[in-house]
Amino acid sequence: MLDYALFDALCAVVRHGSFERAARALNVTPSAVSQRVKLLEERVGTVLVKRGTPCVATPSGALLCRHTERVQILEAQLAGTLPNVPGLDNGRPTLRVAVNDDSVGTWFVDAAAPFCVERQILLDLVIDDQDHTAQLIREGAVQAAVTTQAEPVQGCRSTHLGRMRYFAVCSPHFHETYFSNGVTREALRAAPCVSFNAKDELQQRFIRRVTRAEVNPPLHWIPHVAGFLRGCVAGLGWGMCPERMIGEHLERGELVQMAPGRHLDVALYWQSWRLSIGWLDEFGAMLRTRAAEWLG
Amino acid sequence: MLDYALFDALCAVVRHGSFERAARALNVTPSAVSQRVKLLEERVGTVLVKRGTPCVATPSGALLCRHTERVQILEAQLAGTLPNVPGLDNGRPTLRVAVNDDSVGTWFVDAAAPFCVERQILLDLVIDDQDHTAQLIREGAVQAAVTTQAEPVQGCRSTHLGRMRYFAVCSPHFHETYFSNGVTREALRAAPCVSFNAKDELQQRFIRRVTRAEVNPPLHWIPHVAGFLRGCVAGLGWGMCPERMIGEHLERGELVQMAPGRHLDVALYWQSWRLSIGWLDEFGAMLRTRAAEWLG
Repeated sequence: MLDYALFDALCAVVRHGSFERAARALNVTPSAVSQRVKLLEERVGTVLVKRGTPCVATPSGALLCRHTERVQILEAQLAGTLPNVPGLDNGRPTLRVAVNDDSVGTWFVDAAAPFCVERQILLDLVIDDQDHTAQLIREGAVQAAVTTQAEPVQGCRSTHLGRMRYFAVCSPHFHETYFSNGVTREALRAAPCVSFNAKDELQQRFIRRVTRAEVNPPLHWIPHVAGFLRGCVAGLGWGMCPERMIGEHLERGELVQMAPGRHLDVALYWQSWRLSIGWLDEFGAMLRTRAAEWLG
Repeated sequence: MLDYALFDALCAVVRHGSFERAARALNVTPSAVSQRVKLLEERVGTVLVKRGTPCVATPSGALLCRHTERVQILEAQLAGTLPNVPGLDNGRPTLRVAVNDDSVGTWFVDAAAPFCVERQILLDLVIDDQDHTAQLIREGAVQAAVTTQAEPVQGCRSTHLGRMRYFAVCSPHFHETYFSNGVTREALRAAPCVSFNAKDELQQRFIRRVTRAEVNPPLHWIPHVAGFLRGCVAGLGWGMCPERMIGEHLERGELVQMAPGRHLDVALYWQSWRLSIGWLDEFGAMLRTRAAEWLG
């Protein structure tokens, strides 16, 4: 079998981004961490960590980290049944999940927290666009994902969670400036639009639905959920915001809908490894129930 | 002089991450964009874009993008004085700024919006940790940055903006579970802590200040401002939150301070290129004034 002390050191360096912080987390000296990683690199015969700020795994290093994480999850499962096996770390298992920004900004943490508190699970969230989180589980970088992809990734289970509803909104003053004659092609060509990042297609989908044409608005880029919303409220531009996030703003008249009654729905799915890990399956079942309360 | 139609195509591919989206933004066909980038690559004699999902600039490509962005900013300046020069794009200039997450989550967008609306400036925000935004301006990836680094980056001006104040907070129930006998080393070793990412040193700084020791708490990783706060409120763990973000939560009793009266201050600076661009300098002056209202 493999010498997992070496693998733990590798994982810690990659997770914390430096040998010093990895040493602190493992409660050993930085030179011990460095020796373990070097020894592992000699045994494997290839560089596993690109030294830098931060330290980053090479492709081979990433592969070994993923393997180690799976073993750690299996050990956490075992510790739940046989807590007294010598050498078994009775610490809390960590669940690394890829979640889209808007889910973290609205429902995910509140939905997941009680289960994590009760079962003493640590969360390690990787944030990405909802259309790209499936890629992360496919690559093995996470153990589960909230994603728009319904079709199960190889080796994974897929469960429908619900849908997030988006409305096109802007400030009343912005609406008066640009859309007093309607949300037309000409108006959309002139009115600045807030885009989350290059992966964010929601604004273009709205434009196509409303105008049946391609229109290129001037773009602000704000890759930050709260900042995106503030950009709309402050009149920088219009953007697609989750229904759950803008209720109060609509009520207070800080935001108005540009096309009342028109919305975009994004269906979300939970995909997780088929590892037959009791708590991982239960986490999925719990999330499905709780998501139903928050999502439509 | 250089043929900037080719450079515009390169920049659009890198900004939008694909030839299709770049074509839409430039209002030309994807094959036109592809030809321009290829022609530029032939002339320069090296690959400038790594084709993929998304397309990414090679180091040489990134260098050319930064050069082009500087020329675009100079042209936007010129268009303000001589709007009728043929070929001058009278569009809105884009300001690419690196800003730390907590600033975007609290004050930055509201502070910047009125000026951007009035001067028709588009914002392109790059989000990074406050201790790392200076790196982005040093690399030339952004034209300005909100950073903790006081010393001017070469070729830049530095202005003090104010400080963000952080408090260690957790839910009342979490406090009772872990800290009923005080915020001791033992308690901090057992109590899960929320960390933003590997660059986030605030929790460790708090631990060192309170215990005068290194302690490794179990860690949740939530690289998301709103999610981080929700994690603290929902009782996943304790964490350092910006004063401006938690006022209501403290009032409503959803969060409690772990060490009342003890806080960490992070001084923030504005660094921007010395390009003698009128509106860029005015943006800095405006931000300094507005920041004073939000920061201490």
